[in-house]
Amino acid sequence: MEQHAGTVTLDQPLALARGGILPRPVLAYATYGRRNAAGDNVVLVCHAMTADQHAAGLHPATGRKGWWDIAIGPGKMLDTDRWQVVCLNVPGGNGGSTAPASLDPATGRPYGMRFPEITIADMVDAQARALDQLGIGRLAAVIGGCMGGFQVLEWARRHPARVGRAVAISATPATSAYTIALWELMRQAIYADPAWNGGDYYGQGIPRTGLALGAMIGSVLWLDRDTLAAKFGRRPAADPAQGFAVQEFLGNVRANAEHRFDANSLIRMTQAVDLYDLTAGHADLAAAVAAITAPVLLVSYPGDWRYPAAEIAVLAQVMAQAGIDVRHDSVDSHIGHGAFQFDVSGLEPRVRAFLDR
Amino acid sequence: MEQHAGTVTLDQPLALARGGILPRPVLAYATYGRRNAAGDNVVLVCHAMTADQHAAGLHPATGRKGWWDIAIGPGKMLDTDRWQVVCLNVPGGNGGSTAPASLDPATGRPYGMRFPEITIADMVDAQARALDQLGIGRLAAVIGGCMGGFQVLEWARRHPARVGRAVAISATPATSAYTIALWELMRQAIYADPAWNGGDYYGQGIPRTGLALGAMIGSVLWLDRDTLAAKFGRRPAADPAQGFAVQEFLGNVRANAEHRFDANSLIRMTQAVDLYDLTAGHADLAAAVAAITAPVLLVSYPGDWRYPAAEIAVLAQVMAQAGIDVRHDSVDSHIGHGAFQFDVSGLEPRVRAFLDR
Repeated sequence: MEQHAGTVTLDQPLALARGGILPRPVLAYATYGRRNAAGDNVVLVCHAMTADQHAAGLHPATGRKGWWDIAIGPGKMLDTDRWQVVCLNVPGGNGGSTAPASLDPATGRPYGMRFPEITIADMVDAQARALDQLGIGRLAAVIGGCMGGFQVLEWARRHPARVGRAVAISATPATSAYTIALWELMRQAIYADPAWNGGDYYGQGIPRTGLALGAMIGSVLWLDRDTLAAKFGRRPAADPAQGFAVQEFLGNVRANAEHRFDANSLIRMTQAVDLYDLTAGHADLAAAVAAITAPVLLVSYPGDWRYPAAEIAVLAQVMAQAGIDVRHDSVDSHIGHGAFQFDVSGLEPRVRAFLDR
Repeated sequence: MEQHAGTVTLDQPLALARGGILPRPVLAYATYGRRNAAGDNVVLVCHAMTADQHAAGLHPATGRKGWWDIAIGPGKMLDTDRWQVVCLNVPGGNGGSTAPASLDPATGRPYGMRFPEITIADMVDAQARALDQLGIGRLAAVIGGCMGGFQVLEWARRHPARVGRAVAISATPATSAYTIALWELMRQAIYADPAWNGGDYYGQGIPRTGLALGAMIGSVLWLDRDTLAAKFGRRPAADPAQGFAVQEFLGNVRANAEHRFDANSLIRMTQAVDLYDLTAGHADLAAAVAAITAPVLLVSYPGDWRYPAAEIAVLAQVMAQAGIDVRHDSVDSHIGHGAFQFDVSGLEPRVRAFLDR
């Protein structure tokens, strides 16, 4: 598989929906497979909150497989013998795009929490301009889950002429109060760590304790009750001093989670998800999706209580009434939220059929 | 309503299930209503994790209503014109019973985390001995929810001759991996606070940050998704700087939660709940409940995903097969876990009918 990674520096400032501005943001990207002569085989993959552009192959920083390596490659769901898969790290993200850890050109110091608030719409517009500069116009398809799924919906309505097909996985029409509350807990865990220092910790160490606690909160809330029961039940830990196996698991999350993600990026990414609401600024959901022209595949997981299938079904219904060629597939998985990243067995035939139509 | 509060010092050491010993533990208690001449009208109320013996009337420390004032009093569900309601603060609890904040007689210093691990069985045995010393033998009924419900089941099987009727609310046969994980998050929030200092903070201030974060975690996990959606939805905070209303709510939890509960007590109480498993030490659940002779009312709430109705239904089925006179009522409530503390409208007719039978 031919693959390439690089960065694009936008040639114009990026004005943001919440009022900030990024003068010359850099977007880091990776491509998998080869663009064909007609340039009509590009599939854009939008990453979720804690992922980055290294979707397939080995991650250059961690040496581990990319977050969607199970889905991208020769003969896989997104077959790189047919498609060129492109993935861009969102602005504010943790993969080398301009983010809170970047130097603020106005001060020469890291942005920290002076990095402006980013929305899903900002992510999509930045990606659209980066793709322009990379010579990619129309996309055969855009696909992503969770925060990536929000980007897919935003792509389909903001840039309808560029989107051939849209696959939005685990994407409800808005973020719920519950999810906002969960992100707030993770943020508060970071804020509570004196090492966070209001976001100005660069060059002085990182808020390890807050990040570790945030990772533990996230790991529990990511899984669902039945999954935890099946995985751990009431089994004791291998080391009895650690109590139950589920406590040992959390201890491992704490030990391994500290360096994975920049704390300020995590704060800005979670806030972007909190702010997501398709209907905002529109009369209703029907008006919000009216601009979409691409066929849409919505995928939900019945076990996902964070982004419930019932809310995605409502979105599908409204889209259908608006005349959009929409299909909603609910895919069984024993994994809760985020299932698409770990198991594509149910997803693959549906996505293949949708892209082949 | 006649009411009384006091303490009992057990006249013998209390040997604990997990191996510790409390030489002369004190149990704080409160009574509501008057014991009749026959002494056969005592209803024992078992409190949940963060509650204490002050179940009704005004709490002497906070000036607020007792945690189950809606259920206890003249004409209420537990009618004090008929019953004498007794509530005992569990050992290790936060109401004046011997607990981590108490002086360890061996050292003359507060126990801190040297306070031994307590189990639900220990709580029940301590209560049984305290009631002996108070001259209370047989109980007309034992009732409680969550950790209190676990105590009810333990009362019914450990002291069958003393329990007239048993009402266990939101009490599954064991604590799930998910609930263990949630408590572990709250404990880790406390451990992460340098002010916790391994539990030795008495006289030096309290781990405010950890407790506040733990309270925020608890407040989100106590409620369910639909409740948060109905209460807050995506409404903005009154102060826009606080983001969404649900973030403002969590900010209020943080601001108000700091002094409510001793951190080490919270650790020991959550561990007691983690350890709860009716079947442990028995061949199966049927064997575990075989000693129960009292009629049992099990109450579940369909909206309670922490202690699910389906698991309580299994307990009811096993009890029925074991020949126990058991009834399982599922009560609708828009409140999730802990509903019984806030709304007794569905509970009241069922409990009254059960006590009147």
